[in-house]
Amino acid sequence: MLAEIITIGDEILIGQIVDTNSAWIAQKLNTIGLRVKQISSVSDDREHILTALAEAHQRADVILITGGLGPTKDDITKKTLAEYFGVGLVENKEALENVERIFRRLRGTLTELLDVNKQQALVPENCQVIINKNGTAPGMWFNNDGRIYVSMPGVPHEMMYMVEESVIPKIKGALKLPFIVHKTILTAGEGESYLAEKIADIEDSLPPFIKLAYLPKLGQVRLRLSAYGDNESLLNNEVNEYVAKIVERVGNAVVSEEDITLEKAILNHMTENELTLSTAESCTGGYIAHLITQHAGSSKVYFGGAVSYSYELKESILGVNNETLWQYGAVSKETVTEMVEGALLNFKSDYAIAVTGIAGPDGGTPDKPVGTVWIGVANGEKTITKKFLFGNKRQQNIERSAIAALNMLNILLKEYKN
Amino acid sequence: MLAEIITIGDEILIGQIVDTNSAWIAQKLNTIGLRVKQISSVSDDREHILTALAEAHQRADVILITGGLGPTKDDITKKTLAEYFGVGLVENKEALENVERIFRRLRGTLTELLDVNKQQALVPENCQVIINKNGTAPGMWFNNDGRIYVSMPGVPHEMMYMVEESVIPKIKGALKLPFIVHKTILTAGEGESYLAEKIADIEDSLPPFIKLAYLPKLGQVRLRLSAYGDNESLLNNEVNEYVAKIVERVGNAVVSEEDITLEKAILNHMTENELTLSTAESCTGGYIAHLITQHAGSSKVYFGGAVSYSYELKESILGVNNETLWQYGAVSKETVTEMVEGALLNFKSDYAIAVTGIAGPDGGTPDKPVGTVWIGVANGEKTITKKFLFGNKRQQNIERSAIAALNMLNILLKEYKN
Repeated sequence: MLAEIITIGDEILIGQIVDTNSAWIAQKLNTIGLRVKQISSVSDDREHILTALAEAHQRADVILITGGLGPTKDDITKKTLAEYFGVGLVENKEALENVERIFRRLRGTLTELLDVNKQQALVPENCQVIINKNGTAPGMWFNNDGRIYVSMPGVPHEMMYMVEESVIPKIKGALKLPFIVHKTILTAGEGESYLAEKIADIEDSLPPFIKLAYLPKLGQVRLRLSAYGDNESLLNNEVNEYVAKIVERVGNAVVSEEDITLEKAILNHMTENELTLSTAESCTGGYIAHLITQHAGSSKVYFGGAVSYSYELKESILGVNNETLWQYGAVSKETVTEMVEGALLNFKSDYAIAVTGIAGPDGGTPDKPVGTVWIGVANGEKTITKKFLFGNKRQQNIERSAIAALNMLNILLKEYKN
Repeated sequence: MLAEIITIGDEILIGQIVDTNSAWIAQKLNTIGLRVKQISSVSDDREHILTALAEAHQRADVILITGGLGPTKDDITKKTLAEYFGVGLVENKEALENVERIFRRLRGTLTELLDVNKQQALVPENCQVIINKNGTAPGMWFNNDGRIYVSMPGVPHEMMYMVEESVIPKIKGALKLPFIVHKTILTAGEGESYLAEKIADIEDSLPPFIKLAYLPKLGQVRLRLSAYGDNESLLNNEVNEYVAKIVERVGNAVVSEEDITLEKAILNHMTENELTLSTAESCTGGYIAHLITQHAGSSKVYFGGAVSYSYELKESILGVNNETLWQYGAVSKETVTEMVEGALLNFKSDYAIAVTGIAGPDGGTPDKPVGTVWIGVANGEKTITKKFLFGNKRQQNIERSAIAALNMLNILLKEYKN
């Protein structure tokens, strides 16, 4: 059984928005054993949508469509779906009541609906309506020619609620699906080629129903094993066996045996060991704090920290000496040391991270070009500092600095493990 | 002239990574007047890649392919391209020298290359190699059957450098392209339907070569006008005329007439008026600081701030009274007022933002459910606070809180304009 995702909307094709919906949907489908064969982004154009539907029909059993359902004139998905299935549009009572409910909630009272709002309740007559708890555009489920088609709005939180509450349960009820098992090993500090050479013989010995993929990103490589089949416990056993072999071989570069981010692996370890953390960020500008605090439960570990962009805040919040800043500069071993030790002292955490650097594009000097970053990590007993020279792209320098800082923290934590 | 983007790699189809490359490439192609017809993500599978290439060949003049060029065994793009074009693979001297150069840079000295590294220099014999300054996998340019095909690695910074330095200039040299003009108006605080009704007559009067699209996102709606044609100055004049009409009609909800983010519009205004900003974040955990500091030049406006996750840091960095926290709670009008006024006082900026709330999924109470957020903005003369009730998704609550806070700051700035 295969699925296909079609996103409709010129905004993706002109690059104004990034399609995050598809990855999210693909993850959800994978958990129920439904593989995504292709993801296609097509324009708000009748003919193009018809072609995309016909091509998907050739390849997939389940076709999920997002976008193009807003109340405004550029949204033609609904009309085109009706044409594709050869049916007309009818007003759906439940969908209309939902439009009224949403407006009542938004406005406090139900004022007269605009015509464009009422049109949201029109649907192709062969569909089952999926109520949109968070918006006015209904979802639509179609059974046609042995395939399932589902059309949903492109607004992420509206689509997500529908997928979790209605679409996934309905698909599970309608199809007999195989099992898919994915296991991911997160490594840091070693390159893709090095890892590949190191585990070549293990990779060669994989059975045909297990695939290994290397997913490199910013100083990290994820090794993902995927197994497909009918016997879930057999798949799990086989995959776990190979995971164990790889973990043993790769050794110290392994950060986690779960498919989680570096900061989540750190949070898990620190939570288990009741350790606390604070941050002192200059060039990363709050990005490390954001990475940490996006995770539920981070407040058990993370006290908070400073985004000390200016000299003044480095002094007043972190206690960096004015002379240190003027003698060695804000981007120096001396300053980062005082930042990280100031964070420990002022924020009273067990561990701290500090980053100071030149993210660019301006601010570089011959001595300290754009991309120069000093990172410090410390606990009460030990302070480690390190200088990095990244590239000249601001956003990348911020991201790489954050990952490098988290890597350094992870290594320090390992050193003090047990 | 139309382009198509194909991304290769199971990691997108299982939702492990979000395809950000395609949006970035689409933006670049748009600036040179090349419209993207479709974006397709396909698996690391020979047959599927061949089908995708053949389908794209039917629709597009330029086909850009990313991904599947790593040194490891799951990457089969290169072999499949050679098969598609009916040619063999040859070792390319320049590409091999580049592999050696990269390894010398990484290791400090050139140690023996691994076989998998040398294989990076193998390319289909009909291609022109595009040197990869940032990695070992070469880019490949093919002219075939009246189409241009370009294959590039999927690692974003490697691909981006190639597109900017080589691919875009080569495409401009090879094709005669029409002009495309996009203008975007950023609005905040009004819904899509309201805006559509308000400018319906303007929309109806648009000439056929201008399209209007509504792009809603988190309390903001972007109105995008796109015009296609041969006469650049005519297109610009026509589009600007309609932009002016819409801006006048929509009035106060207009944040910017450029295609920029809300925080960038604020930064531009504050830079021009030499105003300074600091932040005091609890539930947004550094996300507002990150939004601001991702922009080059933000240090002229932004001093920094506190990520005060714990009670202690709210007191020690921001000067919030211990009694306020215990009497009213951390999520209260009283606390957010002391936070924002404490930021102004301690960080010595002209304006400040403070946010405190319950991002979830835990921490809610009957009185203050998950999603309750207090936001404050202030300058020396005025403090505005407001309570919001968002949903129960942590990541969304963080993003919505940040946008709501920036909206409130923008409104306060407008009030004090001139």
